[in-house]
Amino acid sequence: MSRALDLHEDRLFPADPTGRAIARRLHLAVRGLPIISPHGHAEARWFVEDQPFTDPSTLLIVPDHYVLRMLYSQGIGLEALGVNRKGQGSGGRDPRAIFRLVAKHWYLFRGTPTRLWLHHTLHELFGVREALGPESADRIFDRIASCLERPEYRPRALFERFGIEALSTTESPLDPLDHHDALRASGWRGRVVPTYRPDPVIDPDFEGFAGNVVRLGELTGEDTATWPGYLQALASRRAFFKARGATATDHGHPTAATFDLPTSDCEALFARARAGVATPLEAERFRGQLLTEMARMSLDDGLVMQLHPGAFRNHNPTVWHAFGRDQGADIPMRTDYVHALKPLLDRFGNDPRLSLIVFTLDESTYSRELAPLAGHYPALKLGPPWWFHDSPEGMRRFRERVTETVGFYNTVGFNDDTRAFPSIPARHDVARRMDCAFLAHLVADHRLDEDEAREVAVDLSYVLPKRAYRL
Amino acid sequence: MSRALDLHEDRLFPADPTGRAIARRLHLAVRGLPIISPHGHAEARWFVEDQPFTDPSTLLIVPDHYVLRMLYSQGIGLEALGVNRKGQGSGGRDPRAIFRLVAKHWYLFRGTPTRLWLHHTLHELFGVREALGPESADRIFDRIASCLERPEYRPRALFERFGIEALSTTESPLDPLDHHDALRASGWRGRVVPTYRPDPVIDPDFEGFAGNVVRLGELTGEDTATWPGYLQALASRRAFFKARGATATDHGHPTAATFDLPTSDCEALFARARAGVATPLEAERFRGQLLTEMARMSLDDGLVMQLHPGAFRNHNPTVWHAFGRDQGADIPMRTDYVHALKPLLDRFGNDPRLSLIVFTLDESTYSRELAPLAGHYPALKLGPPWWFHDSPEGMRRFRERVTETVGFYNTVGFNDDTRAFPSIPARHDVARRMDCAFLAHLVADHRLDEDEAREVAVDLSYVLPKRAYRL
Amino acid sequence: MSRALDLHEDRLFPADPTGRAIARRLHLAVRGLPIISPHGHAEARWFVEDQPFTDPSTLLIVPDHYVLRMLYSQGIGLEALGVNRKGQGSGGRDPRAIFRLVAKHWYLFRGTPTRLWLHHTLHELFGVREALGPESADRIFDRIASCLERPEYRPRALFERFGIEALSTTESPLDPLDHHDALRASGWRGRVVPTYRPDPVIDPDFEGFAGNVVRLGELTGEDTATWPGYLQALASRRAFFKARGATATDHGHPTAATFDLPTSDCEALFARARAGVATPLEAERFRGQLLTEMARMSLDDGLVMQLHPGAFRNHNPTVWHAFGRDQGADIPMRTDYVHALKPLLDRFGNDPRLSLIVFTLDESTYSRELAPLAGHYPALKLGPPWWFHDSPEGMRRFRERVTETVGFYNTVGFNDDTRAFPSIPARHDVARRMDCAFLAHLVADHRLDEDEAREVAVDLSYVLPKRAYRL
Repeated sequence: MSRALDLHEDRLFPADPTGRAIARRLHLAVRGLPIISPHGHAEARWFVEDQPFTDPSTLLIVPDHYVLRMLYSQGIGLEALGVNRKGQGSGGRDPRAIFRLVAKHWYLFRGTPTRLWLHHTLHELFGVREALGPESADRIFDRIASCLERPEYRPRALFERFGIEALSTTESPLDPLDHHDALRASGWRGRVVPTYRPDPVIDPDFEGFAGNVVRLGELTGEDTATWPGYLQALASRRAFFKARGATATDHGHPTAATFDLPTSDCEALFARARAGVATPLEAERFRGQLLTEMARMSLDDGLVMQLHPGAFRNHNPTVWHAFGRDQGADIPMRTDYVHALKPLLDRFGNDPRLSLIVFTLDESTYSRELAPLAGHYPALKLGPPWWFHDSPEGMRRFRERVTETVGFYNTVGFNDDTRAFPSIPARHDVARRMDCAFLAHLVADHRLDEDEAREVAVDLSYVLPKRAYRL
Repeated sequence: MSRALDLHEDRLFPADPTGRAIARRLHLAVRGLPIISPHGHAEARWFVEDQPFTDPSTLLIVPDHYVLRMLYSQGIGLEALGVNRKGQGSGGRDPRAIFRLVAKHWYLFRGTPTRLWLHHTLHELFGVREALGPESADRIFDRIASCLERPEYRPRALFERFGIEALSTTESPLDPLDHHDALRASGWRGRVVPTYRPDPVIDPDFEGFAGNVVRLGELTGEDTATWPGYLQALASRRAFFKARGATATDHGHPTAATFDLPTSDCEALFARARAGVATPLEAERFRGQLLTEMARMSLDDGLVMQLHPGAFRNHNPTVWHAFGRDQGADIPMRTDYVHALKPLLDRFGNDPRLSLIVFTLDESTYSRELAPLAGHYPALKLGPPWWFHDSPEGMRRFRERVTETVGFYNTVGFNDDTRAFPSIPARHDVARRMDCAFLAHLVADHRLDEDEAREVAVDLSYVLPKRAYRL
Repeated sequence: MSRALDLHEDRLFPADPTGRAIARRLHLAVRGLPIISPHGHAEARWFVEDQPFTDPSTLLIVPDHYVLRMLYSQGIGLEALGVNRKGQGSGGRDPRAIFRLVAKHWYLFRGTPTRLWLHHTLHELFGVREALGPESADRIFDRIASCLERPEYRPRALFERFGIEALSTTESPLDPLDHHDALRASGWRGRVVPTYRPDPVIDPDFEGFAGNVVRLGELTGEDTATWPGYLQALASRRAFFKARGATATDHGHPTAATFDLPTSDCEALFARARAGVATPLEAERFRGQLLTEMARMSLDDGLVMQLHPGAFRNHNPTVWHAFGRDQGADIPMRTDYVHALKPLLDRFGNDPRLSLIVFTLDESTYSRELAPLAGHYPALKLGPPWWFHDSPEGMRRFRERVTETVGFYNTVGFNDDTRAFPSIPARHDVARRMDCAFLAHLVADHRLDEDEAREVAVDLSYVLPKRAYRL
């Protein structure tokens, strides 16, 4: 008999009885709240087609770069984990073999959020009650596979079962959003809205940038060979997204640099970017200018802006060339905000109608830069701990380092940011528990009254994300 | 009936019963100690005139940029908070309206030190027993206003009631210190001494620098058009301050850069600075050279040096142009100490007669740079957590990150650094509690005996600041 | 009667009863495990000669730069602590006077790991039961001195008593390793192996670099005036070390920079380095190229690589010129890994046969750079907290900040890194306790089962260092 898989009802709460009791009471007020998922990587297509997920590994393992990176770091090849080499199509690897491989090395994930998320998913969604390991791998695989065949495990049913009130996907401005259209036409009541992520058409370093700009012109009927036509086309697609429910844009730049340049400079940079001859510095200036343009457009159309800077993408050229993007080889970099955001803030930072939500991969900026900035500028809000820091200790560090300067109400609640749809409840569960634990700590040492803490817990779990993302 | 305002006697102590009991016992040894306030922004004039404070908002809200910045970040205009536009004089806004506005948005301060300080002040100083909020705002305003009319709420009475043994103010070398003279002449026994803050005459980027240097010459009878005369004038004003009780200088530079340049370079830089044509780099070198000159003079006259680098002042040009300096728009920057301080330390760092107290807004330097530097150089001491970090979690991080390398005895106890005079006891209360909590943690896990911890607690609360500031 | 010196059996464990009980149980599983000491500064000579240590101060105080730096920072001269000025031979200072001086100022070490280590050594090794202080100094000195005369306090006896299973020393490639040869010839069963530390022959800034390269040629019979001959000579000495038991190399560069340059560039840099005319940037490139060469050789011979970057060596020129290297005047610097390691990782980072163990003095890189890098690249592992961070809070920060991204199995257990041989058990004791405390925390809030935590504790204490260092 394998070890038992147990989800303790007090997991992640403080160990001391006083703090634990407070956290438990706070959690009662938030555990049942609907999920707002304003920034994720689910796909609208899933809910249009509402087809069963194919198998446990394709659902839970292959798209999860947290799982891939840890196993890869211990010498396990990506192909053995079901990732195909570029140009070799998809699939081909036996899902059961992948699952066995993960189970055999599951001890590597001790102390990681991946473990918390998968245990939650196995326990709560699939009713697994034995620990994952070599002996139990096949039984657990079969159990999940059998669940996936049942109608209550199809995408729409899961969406409803998870209590999702609103879910945002992420799309290029070139996306026709036909799945979103189909979804709205289907009559299904689940709210799934697109997010406007213009990196492919505003980042000169993005693969195919020039062609993307041409395509943007075709889609909008604007002359994107000119700077004014290009801006107009960007605005036009924003309107297109907004008409399909979008409430936000998202920007994944390498740095937080913004610029506010004279029109003649913008035109010259744009010409060089379209010609594919922009230097790295010119590309940086162009991206930074476009952030300021996006902020300007947000004041017109009300879309919330999200900025996620600081990742060195595709740090490992061997993996990148063989397997492509997003295989766990992105690495955070030191990131400046104080100087970088100033041009944008100088122009729009005092306007409370703008909502610019900033994220970071550089935790040293929490108390030094981000909390002081967001604790002053009306236009600025702090996004939750992101990516590598979207974890219990990461969340604790975030609250401990920003709250005293920025408070709770300049933060925006939790984003799950996941590509693994079934892990959404697990991730919100961790976030809600960690916020309750942090609040319990403030109550236990008499910095906050418990009724106030309960109100804050509800705000962080539900009210603030709805408000911040205008959902 | 409103919620109660309660100051729990165990606030900020560890939640576990063992740690809490230890912290409580340690706190008994320090709670009644006199306050040493060696670095603040109180004004000598208050104690000369000893006039009643005008109203609750002008006393507690308008000068507190922590309060202003949080409310401003949530879209509340500075004018509504009683801050006047430049050139429009002072006052004009109804104090009661300001107080109501703060009360209505008081929930924004949950989890912040501002809340702890104001609650302490309301409860202990004004006897308020109901929580601040929209319903209670008027009653609390009236209660404070009524207190302020009474003689025991005048500045001298508060000074005595607070148990302040010594208080340092901060003045420009151009200040005649007439209030300090008047105060000494008055026969009042409270010890209030000036601090020599020469930024206006040593920072080429300071507004009016050239004129200030001329004025410095007039005050001292030195020829401040020459480098030697300028240095002599600076020394002369130091002596003037010292004769009026000053024990320290204070330096608020943008970086920690120091230089030790040949005299010919100093003369050239000084000429360009006086002519208003120094480049940013030249201004940086000039300021850095002057820090080394100040250290040299400290070896002559014994004044302790304080260095507070790393703030990007007036980051928000809109607020700056409309309302002026110090409205909550300063933002910390990444700060280097290892290379920056080396020229000064190369010359004077090994001299234990020099006492250079360094502060930071960049917490990443605590364990990496500041503790290793101050744990080696006899001339260097660490100032307490400052500004954004002058908070429970900030204090905890400071002790956790520096103590293992620098110990307790290379730190200098607490500075309140406040512009809000009535908050002085509240700030020292937080600091003493957090030090006791940290020490209790060391005792609870058997790293320190309790009698030693008690001695350290007394040293941090009283002995070290007196000694470090030579008060 | 002095105060008692007590080593509480629960020291460093969580204060709350739940966590403490778990930590205590975990610790039972590791407290008796043998010590693997793969990176230290003990000398093979001690075990060859097996002579008694001369006196308490020469053994415990003079070689410990943690002790020296703290006392120096408080104005106590290095000569008074037994450190001789350059060119003035060794010894000369009365050991008892040194010991009294330390005892008088022992309160300065409250809250530091130095105190924990020395208390452990006094209590466990020398049976001291009274606290160190001015009154007890002579008695404690006499007790230690009397112990040192006994055979069971000689180096080999201590090695066995400490339960050391393997100990690595650190040597220059120019070292003849004759002590290691003698030790192996002696028939003593203790395992003491050399480590190949090539800084003197690969760092153009190292004192005597050019002469060292000539000497390297003489030792190996290679023509080290040429780039290929130089590389061959380096490989030849690696083989020499490996034949004497070495399993690792160690690299103490100022930065983590690596390069992968064309051969012609390497040859040109090497020529300039040998001629003593390399600019700082050229020296940096040369060192960085050599790291990549070392990685290449490691793939050939299987030696593990260790990289310790980020110290500003000899920051204090006064101390350096008077007393020489390693007197407590090295200061950490901000360190980049993401860009710096890329050239080496681009070439060898995907090869699981390479084991590159990276350390840091810049804790801000733990969660931002090092954990993401080591959590992806098969060749990369994280060394334990090092130097200033080799302390209870430093260890806590390390685990809290890296585990969620890198897990436990991309770390390599503990290194004691000590020059003070008798402190080895004390340092491992602190590390094991802190790991148990961290694991107990995960168990107490239900992130890990206790049996898994016990397995991890054993792995961290014994299994991982043996495996990572191939001992």
